[in-house]
Amino acid sequence: MSKYWSKLAARLEPYVPGEQPKDKKYIKLNTNENPYPPSTNVLEAIKAAADERLKLYPDPNGDELKSILADYFGLKKEQIFLGNGSDEVLAFSFMAFFDAQHPILFPDITYSFYPVYANLFKIDYELIPLKDDFTLPVDQFFKSNGGIIFPNPNAPTGDCVTLEAIEEVLLHNKEHVVIIDEAYIDFGGESAQKLIDQYPNLLVVQTLSKSRSLAGLRVGFALGHKDLIEGLNRIKNSINSYTLDRLALAGAIEAVKDDEYFQSTRNKVIQTREKVTLELRKLGFKVITSKANFVFISHPLIQAADLFMSLKKESILVRYFQQPRIDNYLRVSIGSDAEMDSFLHVIHKIISSGFPHQ
Amino acid sequence: MSKYWSKLAARLEPYVPGEQPKDKKYIKLNTNENPYPPSTNVLEAIKAAADERLKLYPDPNGDELKSILADYFGLKKEQIFLGNGSDEVLAFSFMAFFDAQHPILFPDITYSFYPVYANLFKIDYELIPLKDDFTLPVDQFFKSNGGIIFPNPNAPTGDCVTLEAIEEVLLHNKEHVVIIDEAYIDFGGESAQKLIDQYPNLLVVQTLSKSRSLAGLRVGFALGHKDLIEGLNRIKNSINSYTLDRLALAGAIEAVKDDEYFQSTRNKVIQTREKVTLELRKLGFKVITSKANFVFISHPLIQAADLFMSLKKESILVRYFQQPRIDNYLRVSIGSDAEMDSFLHVIHKIISSGFPHQ
Repeated sequence: MSKYWSKLAARLEPYVPGEQPKDKKYIKLNTNENPYPPSTNVLEAIKAAADERLKLYPDPNGDELKSILADYFGLKKEQIFLGNGSDEVLAFSFMAFFDAQHPILFPDITYSFYPVYANLFKIDYELIPLKDDFTLPVDQFFKSNGGIIFPNPNAPTGDCVTLEAIEEVLLHNKEHVVIIDEAYIDFGGESAQKLIDQYPNLLVVQTLSKSRSLAGLRVGFALGHKDLIEGLNRIKNSINSYTLDRLALAGAIEAVKDDEYFQSTRNKVIQTREKVTLELRKLGFKVITSKANFVFISHPLIQAADLFMSLKKESILVRYFQQPRIDNYLRVSIGSDAEMDSFLHVIHKIISSGFPHQ
Repeated sequence: MSKYWSKLAARLEPYVPGEQPKDKKYIKLNTNENPYPPSTNVLEAIKAAADERLKLYPDPNGDELKSILADYFGLKKEQIFLGNGSDEVLAFSFMAFFDAQHPILFPDITYSFYPVYANLFKIDYELIPLKDDFTLPVDQFFKSNGGIIFPNPNAPTGDCVTLEAIEEVLLHNKEHVVIIDEAYIDFGGESAQKLIDQYPNLLVVQTLSKSRSLAGLRVGFALGHKDLIEGLNRIKNSINSYTLDRLALAGAIEAVKDDEYFQSTRNKVIQTREKVTLELRKLGFKVITSKANFVFISHPLIQAADLFMSLKKESILVRYFQQPRIDNYLRVSIGSDAEMDSFLHVIHKIISSGFPHQ
């Protein structure tokens, strides 16, 4: 606390990202990174862009990347907004579409950045409790509100709702913006971007961080009606005209273009997830059915906090959230087959060591 | 305008960056880019970082870059904040240190992003008119205020105040944060970073975009007391944990390390500026004495708006601001010697064509 802070800075409760420890080598299953490298085309494009043109500002509109994304999704360039990771896109969306006066709705168990944004921009919110099985109670979003946001698949549960469920939410909400945060959609869900031309208040947010193996490049985007995109541009252009550097733009273009590589790596992640789910269930774990690149797990005999620590001792990092309802769960990112074999091996060892009886 | 916009989005007046035309090849003297390429070490470091590690998130704290900057400036890591260009750093500073209740002070002729930030975050401000010769009336900043911000050198004038003048402002302002925006400081001014350990309310903002030839990489930073830096981190971590991608971090480190190249290119820009100033004055131009990588010029016989258009026809882009007091001036970035020779040649042609008498 400092006397020089604004009232805003003083009352904030910032988001805490998953740890990036430097003390030793871990199997990192804690921040939902993709175990596979980016497409080699991406790396080549970045190297080719690393030349004297870096002295010049990037295209503030990212027109070329927008064209590629527009082609990919069958949309117009004016229906696409680019940001520095989907977190920035989400932050700008809170500013562009939500007002202090109208409480917005999001699930009680969800991406923990939403309440941070709401606090930052003084936007009231009402938490919609997930059902006991952690599925989304779609009809609870039919009430009056100032906007809606939820991830699909949800984080940290991995549970995914159908396109029909999304459309039901939209049919009951035509006055305010409905944001579907699709950071994990490519691992088995169906994107709501198909509904964009029908619903002018639908904003779909995606990222290259997970399914395109580019967490280190910081590229996210939003798809929606051109008026929503213009609203986002108004916010962005009041903060920072150039949020994506030349290298990120160059790499992102190739990432979207190399669909074959994308299909192959996301399918590998999906296959590994299915195998890991099966193995964990065999070991007595409750595993929420996941359409994301992580699984949310709980064991009847071992406290999640203890398991977290035991795994960390064995150089395996997963994510533990000390929050009501989920404090006996761990979120485990899906790594490579070899990493997940090591994870399962260690889990097996911990369980058979009779850990809970010590 | 859309019914889905927040009140905030609806009332904004976004910043308009200098044009980046794609219709033909211009000599670009309109966005204060450096005419020299980045250090080859920067390009090599970026290429080396373009590998499979891009699948992983960058270090959210940018510790290695902070260490290098700390060494460079003789500060501690805790006194350094990193952002996606100095624009993002400035936007976060408005949020972290200024309140709606207390009007802040900045010059009437200055970086046109300041009123945009103030409007965005609903911060009242009072404009301090520059003197008739466009120098800063330092004593006008001695009045009660909720914070102060000005660029040094100022933009778009290039006028620079001394370190003693900055210290006078600080001596008269101990209750609120004083931000010195030093985007152009390396072209001949003296940085206020020397005063940081004495004044806990001083924030110095710099960028790699201009003097390090890296406008395309998006790296800015702030230097100040660790409490101010913590305030900025609270804002950043409520919006986007990872604002700098892995490539920007890798390139920035080498840019700061290669001091020899930095010294050589900034000196070349300074020499070209001095030569251009002299030549323009010979042609009858009023040229504000500049310590930046641009000159602010006015001719007694040719309207700036006309000259802007004539230059554009000749494929030379400069910046014209249609604003009170400066609407008969042009801001001309300092390019390479060859570019400035072309510029002077065209200017000479326009003037001798008797343009004003047509």
